[in-house]
Parts: sequence; C-alpha cells; structure tokens
Amino acid sequence: MKIAILGGDGFCGWPTSVHLSAQGHDIHIIDNLSRRWIDTELGVQSLTPMDSIQERCRIWKQVSGETIHFHLLDLSKEFERLKQWLATHKPDAIVHFAEQRAAPYSMKSDRHKVYTVNNNVNATHNLLAAVVESGIDAHIVHLGTMGVYGYSSVGAPIPEGYLDVEIDTPSGKKEQEILYPTRPGSVYHMTKSLDQILFQFYAQNDGLRITDLHQGIVWGTHTDQTARHEQLVNRFDYDGDYGTVLNRFLIQAAIDYPLTVHGSGGQTRAFIHIRDSVRCIELALSDAPKSGDRVKIFNQMTETHRVRDLAELVAKIAGARIAYLPNPRKEAAENDLIVQNDKFLALGLEPTTLAEGLLSEVVDVARKYAHRIDRSRVPAVSAWTKDLAARVEQDPEGTAIRSVS
Amino acid sequence: MKIAILGGDGFCGWPTSVHLSAQGHDIHIIDNLSRRWIDTELGVQSLTPMDSIQERCRIWKQVSGETIHFHLLDLSKEFERLKQWLATHKPDAIVHFAEQRAAPYSMKSDRHKVYTVNNNVNATHNLLAAVVESGIDAHIVHLGTMGVYGYSSVGAPIPEGYLDVEIDTPSGKKEQEILYPTRPGSVYHMTKSLDQILFQFYAQNDGLRITDLHQGIVWGTHTDQTARHEQLVNRFDYDGDYGTVLNRFLIQAAIDYPLTVHGSGGQTRAFIHIRDSVRCIELALSDAPKSGDRVKIFNQMTETHRVRDLAELVAKIAGARIAYLPNPRKEAAENDLIVQNDKFLALGLEPTTLAEGLLSEVVDVARKYAHRIDRSRVPAVSAWTKDLAARVEQDPEGTAIRSVS
Repeated sequence: MKIAILGGDGFCGWPTSVHLSAQGHDIHIIDNLSRRWIDTELGVQSLTPMDSIQERCRIWKQVSGETIHFHLLDLSKEFERLKQWLATHKPDAIVHFAEQRAAPYSMKSDRHKVYTVNNNVNATHNLLAAVVESGIDAHIVHLGTMGVYGYSSVGAPIPEGYLDVEIDTPSGKKEQEILYPTRPGSVYHMTKSLDQILFQFYAQNDGLRITDLHQGIVWGTHTDQTARHEQLVNRFDYDGDYGTVLNRFLIQAAIDYPLTVHGSGGQTRAFIHIRDSVRCIELALSDAPKSGDRVKIFNQMTETHRVRDLAELVAKIAGARIAYLPNPRKEAAENDLIVQNDKFLALGLEPTTLAEGLLSEVVDVARKYAHRIDRSRVPAVSAWTKDLAARVEQDPEGTAIRSVS
Repeated sequence: MKIAILGGDGFCGWPTSVHLSAQGHDIHIIDNLSRRWIDTELGVQSLTPMDSIQERCRIWKQVSGETIHFHLLDLSKEFERLKQWLATHKPDAIVHFAEQRAAPYSMKSDRHKVYTVNNNVNATHNLLAAVVESGIDAHIVHLGTMGVYGYSSVGAPIPEGYLDVEIDTPSGKKEQEILYPTRPGSVYHMTKSLDQILFQFYAQNDGLRITDLHQGIVWGTHTDQTARHEQLVNRFDYDGDYGTVLNRFLIQAAIDYPLTVHGSGGQTRAFIHIRDSVRCIELALSDAPKSGDRVKIFNQMTETHRVRDLAELVAKIAGARIAYLPNPRKEAAENDLIVQNDKFLALGLEPTTLAEGLLSEVVDVARKYAHRIDRSRVPAVSAWTKDLAARVEQDPEGTAIRSVS
C-alpha cells in the first residue's frame, strides 16, 4: 500500500514509518517538524540523540534498501497544499499522528492551550475536508487516546468506543448504542474528544473510512526496526512535559533521581509498549471499515496499572526511592480502570507486557545517555490551574542538585 | 450588569443588544463584522436596509438615551486583544453569538468548511481561555443549536442537554447522567457540538460559569426595541444560505415565488420567534450557574412543526404554491421531534406562537422591501455532497425569471 504517515517524525510516527516500510509499504512521511520546534522552545531534547528526519530516511535506505519519502507540510495551516498532495499521490491509507500530544504542554499557559486547540482541530479537520474534496478513498487511521473516556469508570469495562445504554421512553425502555460519553481531563485530551465528533460527521456525511485508536500510555523506546542502526533510534522524552509516566520512572531510576509520584499515585492508567503500538497500526490498516460504516474504534492498550504500583515495581528493580509530590493535574486522586481490548487480540496482537524484562532495556537506554539529561527539567511543573501551580514542587531533589556521574 | 455581546451585530446579536440596553444594562458589542463581509462575498444583502453598526448605535442613543459601545475585534484571531479587553472591562456577563451560523454556508465548499471550523472553534476556545487567564468571573451565555442533538428522536422528548441512561455492569444496571449524545448534520452544527465539549472541560477544570442555549430556528424580524426606529431594523436573510425555513416561506409568498420544500418536507424542526429569543437570553442571564456547577443547558424553542405543514400554512394564508425540490442536505426524509423546554417556561417565558398573527407581520416586511430581492438568490443550492449537488434545482421558477412588481 501507499501510506501517508502524518506526523511521521514523532515518537510513534517514526517507528510506525520504519515498521511499515520494512513490510514493503510505500511510505510518505508528512510532518511540519513542530515537535522539534517545541524541543527548541522548551530547551529540552530527546534523551536519545536524534538525527534530522532527512538523515534518518537516508540511513533507513542504507540499512533496509527501502525508501521513505519526506514532505514538509503543515496540516493545520496549508490546506491547499495538503489537498494537492493527496490528489497527486492518492495514498491508499493515511495514518494521522499529526497533533500536539502532551497534556502538560497543552496546560502550560493560555498560549499553549490556544496553540493546541488550533493546531489539533484544524489538522484533523483539514485532513478530512481535503480527503473529501480530492475524492480519494484512503482509509484514515487516527491516533486517539484512552483519555477521551476520562478516567472514571462506571464499574463496567470501557468498551471499544461505543456504549450500549437504555433510555426511558413513554413506550418503555429503549436500547441505544452511543459514542462513549467523553470527559477529557486536559486541553490536549479535549482535542481528541473533538476529533471524535469530526470523524463521526465525516464518516456519516461523506462515507469516509475511519479508524480511531484510543491509545494508552506508550512506554519503551526500541522496536525491531529502530534497533537496526544507532541513527534510527527513536526519540525518548524524559522532561516533565513530554515524558510519560513509566518511561519517566525508568529514567529517574537510572540517574538516581526520586521517582516522582503525583498525589497518592492512585491513578490507574492503560499502557502499551511501542512495539505493540506499531503492530496495532499495522493490524488496524489490515482491517479497514467500508464506506458508510461508522467509525471503527479500537482500544489500543495491553494492560492497566496504578501509578504507585508502577513506581514500587521500578523502585524494587532499580533500587530507587519514591517522592510523593502535590499533583499538578486536576484529576481524581484514585480511579479504577478496566478496559476492553478484544478487537486487537482477535486480530492477532500478542502483548508485550511489563513482566517481560523490557523494563531493564529502557533503564539501559537511560543509563547510556544519562550524560544528556538536564535534571532540572525532570519535574512536571505544568499545572492545570493557577491554584495548583502555587503548590507545584519545582525541585523534588531538594536544593542540592547533584551532578550526573 | 456590564454585558459583552460577542457577535452583537448579527441577526440575534443586535436585537439582544438593544433589548438588554433598554433594560438598563451596560452593553458592549464585540464583533469582527464577518457577517457583513460574507454578504459581500455572496453578493446578497439583508432584505431590510441595514445601517453600519456604528450608525445603529448612534440612532439607538437618539431613540433611547442609552449608549451601546462597539469594539471591532476578531475573537478567533486576536486572542491577546480579547484577553486585554476582558481584563480591562471586566464584564459581569458575556453573551457569545460570534460564530458562523449557517449550515448551508458551512457546506458550500471545502473552503467554507475549513473557515467555519477554524472560526467557530477558535472563537469559542479563545473566549474560554481568555476568561480563565484574565481571572474574571463572568457568566458566559452561549448560543448553541437544537441541531447538536441531531434530528433523530428515540421516542422520548429531548431533554435539556443531559440524558439519564442505564448501563449494564457486572454488578447490575447503573444509572448515569450524560451529555445528550451529539449527532450534528452539517459542519456548522458540528462546530456547536465541539463547543459543548469545550464548555464541559472549562466548567470542570476552571469553574467557569457557562449556560448553553440550544436554540431552534428563529423566525420573525422585529422586536419591541428594533421596531422603535426604521434604522434600528433587524437584518433579514432571504437567500438560500442564510435564510431560514419559515422566514423564507414568508418571503417567497410575498413575492409570488413558489414555497421551496426540500424532499418530502417531512423534516420536523423546532422554532422560536426572535422576540422570545431575546427574552430567553435575558432569562438565562438572570439564572446563572455557580462556579463548579456543570454547564447549564436550556432548549430555547417554543414549538415544533413539520416543514411541509408550515409550507401549507403559509400557502393558505398568502395564497402561494409549493414546489417540492430535491433535498440538497443529507438528512432523514422524515423525523419526529419532541423537545422539552420546561426550564424557560418555569423562568417566565410566554411563547409567541405562529398562531398569533405575526406571520403576516413578516409578510408585510417582505412586501415592503420586495424591490431589494434578487430572485436568483432565493433557491438553496449549497449541497451536502457532490452527489447531492448534481441533483440540486437551481431555478425552481423555471427559465422564465419574472421581475418583481
């Protein structure tokens, strides 16, 4: 297949691009490189030294013999160029990762909120309107998030996108299937909830074929393909904005930094390894809906864990200590989370679990590049409200910042 | 109260501004005048001759002695100016009409879809982020639409925003109250569905006090205040994009144009007179939610009618004929619609119904200004898909265009 990977330079986009390229697909990355600009804005960098996208594509050609094309294009701003690109290249499928994807970044300030909404909503909507207008029949696979569900379970497993409910009517109870009610917990998660409504409309009005993947928190860094050459290494974010919880614990352990747990750590979250994430994209591409079908929704996760349990597990493996800090997020202190993921299992996904020794692989990556870590950027200091900001712990290590040895 | 009316130059915004000004409120209109630019783009104009907003404010001062302030500002693009304005003026309440509000315009072309999403989502989100950042405690009253519900009823009256459902859980049925599942039928309606999610998040995360009014189709033109001087007259759209169904029938009757019914006319819609609309805004302002409350949602409509029944009613009153045309919209040919509007009735709304002779008032307005009508702009030609566009009737009168006498 000819596949356009929107946001193919990012943390999920790059390993997906090389994974699908290795399988013989014709891969075209479209990216505005905004994630690299945000690195520059924040003054942080990937733990792993990351070459330019052009250089990565050159190395990939050397290693695999396969060509990955790169097109610099801003989805959210360049509607006409996007439309022309689609009409010219006529991809069979489009994988859409091209959104600002960090909840803490989306909550840093009013400017970041405005940027995230403007960028994400326009990127998704421009894509949908351009696909309709160009008349192509591409299957669109979108990376959503478990966070659209919110993290309050009603005591039943969260189904894959759609919920059966009963409604009282004058003629008795009536069954109805609805989109699972959305309750996002950050501006970033909110934009993914907005995306759901955009998809619903364009599937219904224009018969677009859309798959929405509600992904859990991704951990790990290597896939089989990114591991083939040092310069193909995936990005690895350890900072308080873009680093995600499990990877952050592993890196904190590697540099003898306290494992920073927010609140009681009673938050339960869904997880998936980056290897499974790219495999899920492959499976979703192989199982496209037909025109006229409703949006196909998968829960893209393999296990759930309570944050403090993860911290304790990592502390035990790596001999780290845990620091319980005030929570900068506005969220429930404790929540249960039970999630259905039957659809990917049925398609053949074999989950990579935490139990499989891969935790130490991440600790090894972290130790290898520990000299690149700015310890002052490890704490998560982006707060959900001004009141919460006043309580944020800026320096969990205390005033004595130790050097990385 | 000091009240900011965003979009105060528009069809609902202007009569609301003078209505609230007449009651002694300090009114500040904020508008980018986009609706006037769209008139220019489309080459159509309000049936009623409409002065500039500055001139209207001058006449209002003459007539009433009250001052209405006007500020030219684009909500969707000028976030910093908006924030400064709010911090300086500290309004007690903000009425938000400032969105592109025509479904057919939103579906005219890809450019119009992209404009509508970009404009409406950013306008609403910028407002919310700016209110949070400026730290004011203004009550936000937003004009939404009945169209967020979609027009498929499950056999029970559509409640005011929230729906009680039962969900199966391993420990038995569980009751839950959810936002009524959204199923918008156009890009315009879709943006109002997106707004709902924005409101839910900002009410929850930041304690913003928000009222969302799900309005039916507005008909009529005069209110007590706009009727006080010829130059205070409200705008009146008769064209296929901005004209709405009942007002269009009335104008078609006035100029001996066939009443254009789309499909079987089996669509049931909710209606409200412009007099009641401004009164509802007043009532909503008097009944603000507290910080921390969920979004307060009202159904702002007074009666429902099937489109063909309205056509027959107008045909009988005015001696017009009916033309059944292919439907340019993608929608159910027939639908039932039962809507709860108990909350406004409880606050004292006394509905102005079709039965009250006001239909002829609109016909009188139409006859008075009939010389300003371009008959070629009466048909609704904006189609929801390319397939539907091929079937649109461009000239319901036949090739012989008669002059307006």
